[in-house]
Amino acid sequence: MAHSILPCCSINSCLTTKTYLKNNNTCSAIFYNSVPLQTCKYPGTVLRSCKLRPRRQSIIYATATPTSQEIEKSTLTGSPQSSSESSAKSKKVMIIGGDGYCGWATALHLSNKGYEVAIVDNLVRRLFDHQLGIDSLTPISSIQNRVRRWKSVTGKSIQLFVGDICDFEFLSEAFKSFEPDSVVHFGEQRSAPYSMIDRSRAVYTQHNNVIGTLNVLFAIKEFSQECHLVKLGTMGEYGTPNIDIEEGYITITHNGRTDTLPYPKQASSFYHLSKVHDSHNIAFTCKAWGIRATDLNQGVVYGVRTDETDMHEELCNRFDYDGVFGTALNRFCVQAAVGHPLTVYGKGGQTRGYLDIRDTVQCVELAVANPAKPGEFRVFNQFTEQFSVNDLARLVTTAGKKLGLDVQTISVPNPRVEAEEHYYNAKHTKLIELGLRPHLLSESLLDSLLNFAIKFKDQVDPAQIMPTVSWKKIGVKTRTVSV
Amino acid sequence: MAHSILPCCSINSCLTTKTYLKNNNTCSAIFYNSVPLQTCKYPGTVLRSCKLRPRRQSIIYATATPTSQEIEKSTLTGSPQSSSESSAKSKKVMIIGGDGYCGWATALHLSNKGYEVAIVDNLVRRLFDHQLGIDSLTPISSIQNRVRRWKSVTGKSIQLFVGDICDFEFLSEAFKSFEPDSVVHFGEQRSAPYSMIDRSRAVYTQHNNVIGTLNVLFAIKEFSQECHLVKLGTMGEYGTPNIDIEEGYITITHNGRTDTLPYPKQASSFYHLSKVHDSHNIAFTCKAWGIRATDLNQGVVYGVRTDETDMHEELCNRFDYDGVFGTALNRFCVQAAVGHPLTVYGKGGQTRGYLDIRDTVQCVELAVANPAKPGEFRVFNQFTEQFSVNDLARLVTTAGKKLGLDVQTISVPNPRVEAEEHYYNAKHTKLIELGLRPHLLSESLLDSLLNFAIKFKDQVDPAQIMPTVSWKKIGVKTRTVSV
Repeated sequence: MAHSILPCCSINSCLTTKTYLKNNNTCSAIFYNSVPLQTCKYPGTVLRSCKLRPRRQSIIYATATPTSQEIEKSTLTGSPQSSSESSAKSKKVMIIGGDGYCGWATALHLSNKGYEVAIVDNLVRRLFDHQLGIDSLTPISSIQNRVRRWKSVTGKSIQLFVGDICDFEFLSEAFKSFEPDSVVHFGEQRSAPYSMIDRSRAVYTQHNNVIGTLNVLFAIKEFSQECHLVKLGTMGEYGTPNIDIEEGYITITHNGRTDTLPYPKQASSFYHLSKVHDSHNIAFTCKAWGIRATDLNQGVVYGVRTDETDMHEELCNRFDYDGVFGTALNRFCVQAAVGHPLTVYGKGGQTRGYLDIRDTVQCVELAVANPAKPGEFRVFNQFTEQFSVNDLARLVTTAGKKLGLDVQTISVPNPRVEAEEHYYNAKHTKLIELGLRPHLLSESLLDSLLNFAIKFKDQVDPAQIMPTVSWKKIGVKTRTVSV
Repeated sequence: MAHSILPCCSINSCLTTKTYLKNNNTCSAIFYNSVPLQTCKYPGTVLRSCKLRPRRQSIIYATATPTSQEIEKSTLTGSPQSSSESSAKSKKVMIIGGDGYCGWATALHLSNKGYEVAIVDNLVRRLFDHQLGIDSLTPISSIQNRVRRWKSVTGKSIQLFVGDICDFEFLSEAFKSFEPDSVVHFGEQRSAPYSMIDRSRAVYTQHNNVIGTLNVLFAIKEFSQECHLVKLGTMGEYGTPNIDIEEGYITITHNGRTDTLPYPKQASSFYHLSKVHDSHNIAFTCKAWGIRATDLNQGVVYGVRTDETDMHEELCNRFDYDGVFGTALNRFCVQAAVGHPLTVYGKGGQTRGYLDIRDTVQCVELAVANPAKPGEFRVFNQFTEQFSVNDLARLVTTAGKKLGLDVQTISVPNPRVEAEEHYYNAKHTKLIELGLRPHLLSESLLDSLLNFAIKFKDQVDPAQIMPTVSWKKIGVKTRTVSV
């Protein structure tokens, strides 16, 4: 076994390595089973000596000196469950966008279930908050502290790769280092209103999402041909057709002939469109290169608590209630908690699929545990119940009453372009068949949502609640102020 | 009427203006009815004085001093047919990609038909030739000489905006200056093999095509709300479904309900996928912003001569026969002319729609003359006949015999991933209903194609003929040499 000394530090100007993250004024290093060797001359960093294990290297972005106890517990190249080479082989999951709302909950869940997890994230979601003058209702720790806390609470390590998947050089290094068996790809700009703020945000959204996903596909082809891609799509790809929505494909009989074809897509924002583009690109690479992929067309996610994020306050997930990133039900609960009328957009007949974030993590786990076959492009509709916006307003009003809240509802002009009264019946059986046990809204509304919103109601900034982005008024001038 | 002096030059280092085209080391200027004023200190350029006409300015990229006779004839802000403000209003056509194979032929055709034409092009297609070591079989003039020759032959002016539509600042100026009534958008990377060379070309293709089209949509929304977008799509967006291909939409009855939905897309290269993405983006903006758009899903174009390009040898169109940009039939004719076996990929049962380039220009004219309604996303399948690759090989063999050529056919391994035997029946009635009179292959094969290829056979570089790009072997390493 060879030995090498490779430094790892997180400060702005470490003189020893500047291999990655130059733009963030931080750096990372390649190392192996870490043992502290000597203290860096800058506070909060450590230089390590590393046992070299061929093809098992890890790039890790560390921010502070872990305790030696923590380091002794750590087996950075394998979770406790993956002690043998063969079992580790099927259990390494790279979670792109693992610092976000769904990504963080999923990373912890899979880590808790014994998967060896690496988070890949450029942390740009946190930047959006700064730029738009919005914030999570819940206080969230830095990703570095989150990962460290998870380690101290559970003894489980999550590797962290900080960088942009649109930078293929970065992504390549992350792939070569971690060698994932599955990639769960949440790493996209995920807000429809954000993509409709102005031209530059529309272009950013499509570029970032489409090119990022292309890079992931190329990385899988080049470095991990057997790797299973679990990609987060959206139910919004389908739009609101006047026929039942199937899971990805529809069998059509036309002029006496029959074929099963991709379900027609009618997305209604540049964000939703970016997911449609991704789906087409992924489907092609499954056919051309034999990539194995699962497209999870997810509904609107609500809730914030999962078993894992509940373990420690520093593991708390983000909770968005603003007009740009806040999803309908989360926003309604915050409005009810602070006495703001529930803001129904237009007629409120807009019907969508919804799911509890505890089901998001369950669905992703099911997809990872039951990978698609080589060349298969599999589509699951990932939601558990359908509601109209008016349904949600009624449910929150009723639940609010039980807690003594006087909940009012108002209709505000719909900032979006969408049908406000329409047929909607979307299939969602494939994940149930794989074993999904849904958390239904009726059971979680009070506990997981309303009471949670009430707990944090003093943190609510009412200025963030109303919609400020219009589908029709979007222009070419870059909006330079908070929205 | 105000007067201003605005220089216009094309050399690398004109000191007077550096407003556009900095990357190309050239510059352009805003001017009006041009009159030569003084000679620039660099050869081949001229400074002009310009009559200001509010909202009628034109950015023109000129490369040499026109004769004063030419300039006197020139009415740069209106074709002879657009003498009155009202008639000009419906006749200004911006042709993005107007220096390319279809774009050039279309620009001349519309100019000849009395439209006021502006070409917008970054000329990158010429760069691809240099980088890949390939060339048009026919000698093609610079775009500046082409436009000047067109002027001298017909007395008609074509305005020229040289720049990249992915640069929104450039595109904005072109829109504000020209104020198009229609935009015909050919300005995309249009080769499937090019998009499959390596990761960087795949990413380039999707970025360039998708973001360029997004910018065009934003420019229309911002500057020319009534402007009709005529966008070149491709029949390749549909793939080869086992049912009839309709024109853009299909009516589906499913579980007792019926809706008319976008026809499902199954594209088979990163290029074809980029067109699918465009189609979805455009459809959304028609719905959200009321954009009027026609998507021309074009088949494989063959031939090179049109009435207009035949007027002078300096107006000659490009003719690609190489493995990257050459289309099947053009390539077969060149192979027959030089005694190279016709290279059928795989089994040769691949069936597609084909059309003569004289029908391309006719179809675009029909679309421009009959614009879509506000908010309408109209799709026409633009081809005239269906052939399999084997059909084409047989037709060329038979026609070759008449000219005394001994034509052989060989099957080469298919570099693409595609069905080699399949059902194919695509509708193409909408352009016929608008008045298209097709040139059928049986009538043009000898004259417009084979004899033309024979005329230029001494220019053929046999090294360019064989396919060198593989759909399965594409990798992440950038290919740095000719393909």
